[in-house]
Amino acid sequence: MILRDMGEATVRAALLAVLGILLIAGCDCSQRFKYEIKEFQVPLDHFSFLINATFNIRYLYNDSFVDKSNARTPIFFYTGNEGDIELFAQNTGFLWEQAERQRALVIFAEHRYYGKSLPFGSSTFNTSLPEHLAYFTVEQTLEDYAMLITFLRNDRQMPVVAFGGSYGGMLAAWFRMKYPHLVNGALAASAPVLQFPGITDCDIFYRIVTSVFQNAYNENCTLNIAKSWKLFETLGASEAGKKQISDAFHLCNALKNDDDLKKFLDYVEEVYSNLAMVNYPYNSSFLAPLPAYPVRQVCYYLKELHSTDADLLHAMSSALAVYTNYTQSAKCLDISVNSNADDSGWNIQSCNQMVMPICSNGSETMFRTSSWNFKDYAEKCYKNYRLTPKPYDIILRYGGRNLEAATNIIFSNGLLDPWSGGGVLQAPNDKVFVIILPEGAHHLDLRHSDPADPPSVRDARDKEAAIIARWIQDF
Amino acid sequence: MILRDMGEATVRAALLAVLGILLIAGCDCSQRFKYEIKEFQVPLDHFSFLINATFNIRYLYNDSFVDKSNARTPIFFYTGNEGDIELFAQNTGFLWEQAERQRALVIFAEHRYYGKSLPFGSSTFNTSLPEHLAYFTVEQTLEDYAMLITFLRNDRQMPVVAFGGSYGGMLAAWFRMKYPHLVNGALAASAPVLQFPGITDCDIFYRIVTSVFQNAYNENCTLNIAKSWKLFETLGASEAGKKQISDAFHLCNALKNDDDLKKFLDYVEEVYSNLAMVNYPYNSSFLAPLPAYPVRQVCYYLKELHSTDADLLHAMSSALAVYTNYTQSAKCLDISVNSNADDSGWNIQSCNQMVMPICSNGSETMFRTSSWNFKDYAEKCYKNYRLTPKPYDIILRYGGRNLEAATNIIFSNGLLDPWSGGGVLQAPNDKVFVIILPEGAHHLDLRHSDPADPPSVRDARDKEAAIIARWIQDF
Repeated sequence: MILRDMGEATVRAALLAVLGILLIAGCDCSQRFKYEIKEFQVPLDHFSFLINATFNIRYLYNDSFVDKSNARTPIFFYTGNEGDIELFAQNTGFLWEQAERQRALVIFAEHRYYGKSLPFGSSTFNTSLPEHLAYFTVEQTLEDYAMLITFLRNDRQMPVVAFGGSYGGMLAAWFRMKYPHLVNGALAASAPVLQFPGITDCDIFYRIVTSVFQNAYNENCTLNIAKSWKLFETLGASEAGKKQISDAFHLCNALKNDDDLKKFLDYVEEVYSNLAMVNYPYNSSFLAPLPAYPVRQVCYYLKELHSTDADLLHAMSSALAVYTNYTQSAKCLDISVNSNADDSGWNIQSCNQMVMPICSNGSETMFRTSSWNFKDYAEKCYKNYRLTPKPYDIILRYGGRNLEAATNIIFSNGLLDPWSGGGVLQAPNDKVFVIILPEGAHHLDLRHSDPADPPSVRDARDKEAAIIARWIQDF
Repeated sequence: MILRDMGEATVRAALLAVLGILLIAGCDCSQRFKYEIKEFQVPLDHFSFLINATFNIRYLYNDSFVDKSNARTPIFFYTGNEGDIELFAQNTGFLWEQAERQRALVIFAEHRYYGKSLPFGSSTFNTSLPEHLAYFTVEQTLEDYAMLITFLRNDRQMPVVAFGGSYGGMLAAWFRMKYPHLVNGALAASAPVLQFPGITDCDIFYRIVTSVFQNAYNENCTLNIAKSWKLFETLGASEAGKKQISDAFHLCNALKNDDDLKKFLDYVEEVYSNLAMVNYPYNSSFLAPLPAYPVRQVCYYLKELHSTDADLLHAMSSALAVYTNYTQSAKCLDISVNSNADDSGWNIQSCNQMVMPICSNGSETMFRTSSWNFKDYAEKCYKNYRLTPKPYDIILRYGGRNLEAATNIIFSNGLLDPWSGGGVLQAPNDKVFVIILPEGAHHLDLRHSDPADPPSVRDARDKEAAIIARWIQDF
């Protein structure tokens, strides 16, 4: 069953809640996904004594599950990542479900420089003011969270469990590693903490995406996609061909030059990656409104091996629309926006610390061949943001593959998730838990329980819930 | 036996070395305390992307003990603290002894803003340029050390043991806590990591100093000292009295006003504290050239309960000279310098992060009553350095008393050391080792072995050596 619009997803979730088709007995589900929006003042720069400037980050607050007689109320703290924090609150149902069960205080903290937590308001991203971007780092963000937890605890003994998915999962893991006195444990879902220079092959990401597409419907899917790059290139070489592409894909802005063509191809590539990430077993609206198992839908449109250019182009356009216009509300395709997440912020982070090499060997994947070249990468960063990336910052601080001293972290990874290639798949010791979801996409386990969940996801959630309960009990 | 000058201390150490009166068989003691002085480039600011400035820190390097055939050569890394790094290299004999035993590479890293590791050369401490002092923090320093270790290892698998005493011991412990992937274990000798606001009584320091003086010779020692404050105050109220003090103590600059008197009294108080810290069982020259058990010497001069002002003044002067002029080479007493350590740097650190409250209840100690008032403290910091202290930075980052997640740290504390009141005296888990030296002064265990060492110090060193050997073996 494929639900056909975003609104229905919400209605469905509400229905599920009302009907109590969820694991927890006596669930007051009406409080799920609800919160007050609060603000918390943080120093712009936690680490130097040069400036005293402050600004406010937002956080979402829900204490409706809390047992007021419990002096040791747990705090479930979502370490916000690249986007408006409300997006994550709406897509992290597991935290809400567990908060009910553990009668925890629910906090979703917004990452500095995202959503409405902008240190310089509307001029935050003014690249001609480099001092505006200077404090957009992992360490400053973790300090914001550390201060917020200290404030929330207010000297009370409250166990804290950090939750995060993707980059938020990296933050949750690192938060536990660096502030274990404030964070009793962390669930780091689909956190590619190893996707950094020199410690993971750069082609792993695209190889996994390809594998997901290969297994979605039939093998023609990836063969068509692999063929399409050549077609786009050939067509893109002429004015008429550019128009043909623009028309076939209903582009809002027709391709005018090679730069436009490149942007279009990059966009298409990113859509495939996003599709693999959010290849959830039910309709969802995390990166975009999507049907259940969207990759299967995409590949359904590519099930025939098309021999003519026109047929292939048409099929590709239908396939892409699964992601770009599932709600059928878009009049045209705007390739400047590819997901609900905040790319503008992430692009900056990828130009300071979050240097996560991705490359592709075209003969082994459905993608174009692309190499990883740090020099070019750094030049582009400087050109765009006047930033010189520090590719080894993260490994220096968080240890790369050397995680032996880490404790109380769950690293969960879905094997269908392209980011799992940079995830922790082997536990370094018996206090770090690795949970593999063979049938899982990108942090599927963090989402709300759903009847359509595959068994491995339910098992994973059960294990995670048990470990989290133990952390709270051990406190 | 009391040796009477600094030179003899060196001669004696050399003799001991040559004669092999040390624990290790086959010791090539000629290499001890010898090193090349090298430099290493570090970013001025590791944490923002605002500035790209760099400067050089110094480090001392000795690879003469290394077994070149061992691919896993240990690195013994002294986390330099507040002073010229050569001072610490000369006063950390235990590291040298263990380096011989473990065939380790010896590194003593100089702390930024000390010795010759000045980011802005001679204008580093120009307080009218606040950007010069802005990067003088614990976190920046630990990053310097992390980068230096990464450079020294050069991708080789080399276990690293951090050593440090006092503030250097705090750094060693925090280094292991925050960079366990780079540091396999840390010996934190006399590291008062708990001497921070709200987690340790501020009067513990002076109570321990008093106790050391009470037990050094006879009880008249502390009675005389306690009485002397009133005498100084009474005399200091008049011109003639000020002259009397100045003459009695052979001050280079006679006391002219109340401010001078205050400085003199602060100086005297600090001398007592320093004496308790370096109350070593043999002559030494760490903070100043001193005889064995200098507190006993001081109290020897104060063994009579003096009834006249003149007698007390004279006795006090003789007592103080044990610390201020043991070599009898000083023509007069300069109260602007009270030790070999670098106070100018430390005063700045105490005005940014290292806010370590000290107070005294005059009825329980031999000191004047003094309260701890953060407001006054902060105002003075702002006046002197344009710095606003952040008293909770250290607890926020390093956990205060919540050290449950720490591993592979030895906290050793001598109970005769006033800083032991802020030390870790109870192990939070079985991977953190607490070693108590009932007869130990300030990081006595870090010093070279000496026939005069009390048994508890020898035991402590044996235990420390065994734990360090295990860390290396486990690597």
